Amino acid sequence: MKPIRVGLIGLGTVGQGVIKVLRENAEEITRRVGRPVVVTHASARDLSRERGVDLTGVQLTTDSMSIARDADVDVVAELIGGHSPAAELILAAIGRGKSVVTANKALIAQDGNRIFDAARKAGVAVAFEAAVAGGIPIIKAIREGLAGNRIESVAGIINGTCNYILTQMTEKGEDFAEALAAAQKLGYAEADPTFDIEGVDAAHKLTILASIAFGIPLSFEAVATEGITRVTSQDIANARQLGYRIKLLGIAKRSEGGVELRVQPTFIPEDKLLAKVDGVLNSVLVKGNAVGQVGFYGRGAGSEATASSVVADIVDIARALTGESRYTVPALAFQPDAVKPLPLVPAADTESANYLSLRVADEPGVLSKITAILAAHDISVEAIIQREPHGGEDAKVALITSVVSEQRLATAMAEMQTLPFVREGIARFRVEKFD
Amino acid sequence: MKPIRVGLIGLGTVGQGVIKVLRENAEEITRRVGRPVVVTHASARDLSRERGVDLTGVQLTTDSMSIARDADVDVVAELIGGHSPAAELILAAIGRGKSVVTANKALIAQDGNRIFDAARKAGVAVAFEAAVAGGIPIIKAIREGLAGNRIESVAGIINGTCNYILTQMTEKGEDFAEALAAAQKLGYAEADPTFDIEGVDAAHKLTILASIAFGIPLSFEAVATEGITRVTSQDIANARQLGYRIKLLGIAKRSEGGVELRVQPTFIPEDKLLAKVDGVLNSVLVKGNAVGQVGFYGRGAGSEATASSVVADIVDIARALTGESRYTVPALAFQPDAVKPLPLVPAADTESANYLSLRVADEPGVLSKITAILAAHDISVEAIIQREPHGGEDAKVALITSVVSEQRLATAMAEMQTLPFVREGIARFRVEKFD
Repeated sequence: MKPIRVGLIGLGTVGQGVIKVLRENAEEITRRVGRPVVVTHASARDLSRERGVDLTGVQLTTDSMSIARDADVDVVAELIGGHSPAAELILAAIGRGKSVVTANKALIAQDGNRIFDAARKAGVAVAFEAAVAGGIPIIKAIREGLAGNRIESVAGIINGTCNYILTQMTEKGEDFAEALAAAQKLGYAEADPTFDIEGVDAAHKLTILASIAFGIPLSFEAVATEGITRVTSQDIANARQLGYRIKLLGIAKRSEGGVELRVQPTFIPEDKLLAKVDGVLNSVLVKGNAVGQVGFYGRGAGSEATASSVVADIVDIARALTGESRYTVPALAFQPDAVKPLPLVPAADTESANYLSLRVADEPGVLSKITAILAAHDISVEAIIQREPHGGEDAKVALITSVVSEQRLATAMAEMQTLPFVREGIARFRVEKFD
Repeated sequence: MKPIRVGLIGLGTVGQGVIKVLRENAEEITRRVGRPVVVTHASARDLSRERGVDLTGVQLTTDSMSIARDADVDVVAELIGGHSPAAELILAAIGRGKSVVTANKALIAQDGNRIFDAARKAGVAVAFEAAVAGGIPIIKAIREGLAGNRIESVAGIINGTCNYILTQMTEKGEDFAEALAAAQKLGYAEADPTFDIEGVDAAHKLTILASIAFGIPLSFEAVATEGITRVTSQDIANARQLGYRIKLLGIAKRSEGGVELRVQPTFIPEDKLLAKVDGVLNSVLVKGNAVGQVGFYGRGAGSEATASSVVADIVDIARALTGESRYTVPALAFQPDAVKPLPLVPAADTESANYLSLRVADEPGVLSKITAILAAHDISVEAIIQREPHGGEDAKVALITSVVSEQRLATAMAEMQTLPFVREGIARFRVEKFD
């Protein structure tokens, strides 16, 4: 089947990520959509620049408008950011009947109403999942997944730079300036960090979240915005002592009198999951009147995480362009003729770290014999507890092993079980570390 | 515009929730879809039973098949569970050209391939968001929101009963039998809890997650399933001491040799967010090659949380039946003509708890004068820290207030600022508790 042809405007971090993701996952994406999705055109201001991605087969130009207008492009991805010429390019693409995907939160927050109106009249889509919270599919979750609810509030850690800085201040006791410098060094903050640390970026994202949550027009000017520059290390220390963490939150809340839209450093009780989202991660908590609280977390920025959302939007559009019935998302995510079995890994070959718990007679040398068996099978012990017996009871040993195949562990456990001082029934559970 | 007419098969907990949610949120849902969505028909085995929901205007019957076949029903929601007659009813509705929404994980996991095939041939949808993780829109997230990724693994706490029991064992030191009895008393476990505690329910859900993540056929028999009955309070105590929590996880993992599908009690490092999802909450962690790890948490069961997902599926279908272009989800979630401004709550009227931090001269009576001002404005102090000065420095006071309007707090802060021993510049941040 004919591929869906994507025209990329912008070959920066996100644009390169989109090319990489579409190429690396070409097989999966074709199976999901029903036909290939290929970047055929791309534009950048400076084509001579070295980029970290192979551009073979991509028609390059410095003329972005030519991509927006090209009859050989099915979907346009606008990834240059800023207001102008992004707005003109998107409107031109819409005018040619093309759907558009964008990661441009500033543009959507400030000029989305006009763009969506044009798209609706043209019968095309303008999709912007990547504009909020990077790789977390939060737009789709609110717009579709929670569409049965009256949304009461949305609260989010939606600026990774600020979250990184506040986390550094909390964990290392650094002051704001030190933490900012560290963030800049790691590329988590721009040379001019104003938009991030003053809360403007978060306010753009909150504007979008509030609109889709409450059905209100995009109203960036209505957000009361405060950044994190006023947070001192004293505040951070006080927060900890009082049982709180400080996060820059975007909050959109409904109350009797209307809505509140705020971006502010906020104290959150330390036992809430939102308080535990650290570093450059983003997280959004949505409260709906039916579902209660639903939380989402993941990478809020970065080349491939953002590309994940851009490509998801492209897949949505590609499915809509491809589907035969009005229901264009396959029930099992992949097109029925592309669903195919994968071999089951034989149980003996699966690998994991493990917890073992043994009851043993209280004799000298017990521990060394157990660990010798593990060592003989090349299994190391990551942690161990030995509990002394009370009044004639058995002693108890619990340990965590290194990652090992089921087969090898089973052999070692069988050997342990033959030791005369090990009681019947070694308990064993798997350990998953999620690193 | 003509309403979308929903026929409910089953008036149990979830069915009642669906009626309640569609009714309570009728205005929001109409604004999202573009026309009303109304339950017009419902069936139950015993119509004389008292139900916690008003059934006025709903045509009731004991004959479920009549609903599946009724030409006056646009969408059928199958909420009776079990294999038969659910499968026959769904196939009958599909045969009449109706889309179907179901929460029936057992049926989808064991017979979904056949049902989806029939739906595809008929050009209708069978949607099942409510079948996995209750109100968390995880099916949509994987199937659409993360569609740009090659999914590497899915791991989830997808049985609230087991998570409640393990949480009780961890927090209260109860043994399995005690915790199960407590869960039964609270309605979190059935009188016959076998399906939950033996991991079968989780295995049904994992089957569905694995299929949409990897594009493999639904293969329930391939899941290696173990429940939580073997977990002892000794294991729980050992886990804590070793820095872990025990959770019943459903894990679907890709490796070189193929896929692993397991439901097992699993040790998770206590600092991972997944380890902190307690009680009846569900949580799913998805790892994609572009996005990295993305996490979701929320209520995995209960009348209205499950209804949230059923209604979201109905909204999807209703949008597809209503939309004029092939892009049927409005950009801003609500239909353009239904987007309407809400008043901004004036800043002075917004309410929150607050953190205040003051520098004060080291004099007797300081604390009592500060707290007297707060008390005079009916603001109570929830927590306070006073730091003694070192060598001529000021003393420092930090406190958390009760929830109070901005107006009232501002007045109190202004009064404090006039106290001669309070230095210029009281720091203040809001506190959000997310209860």
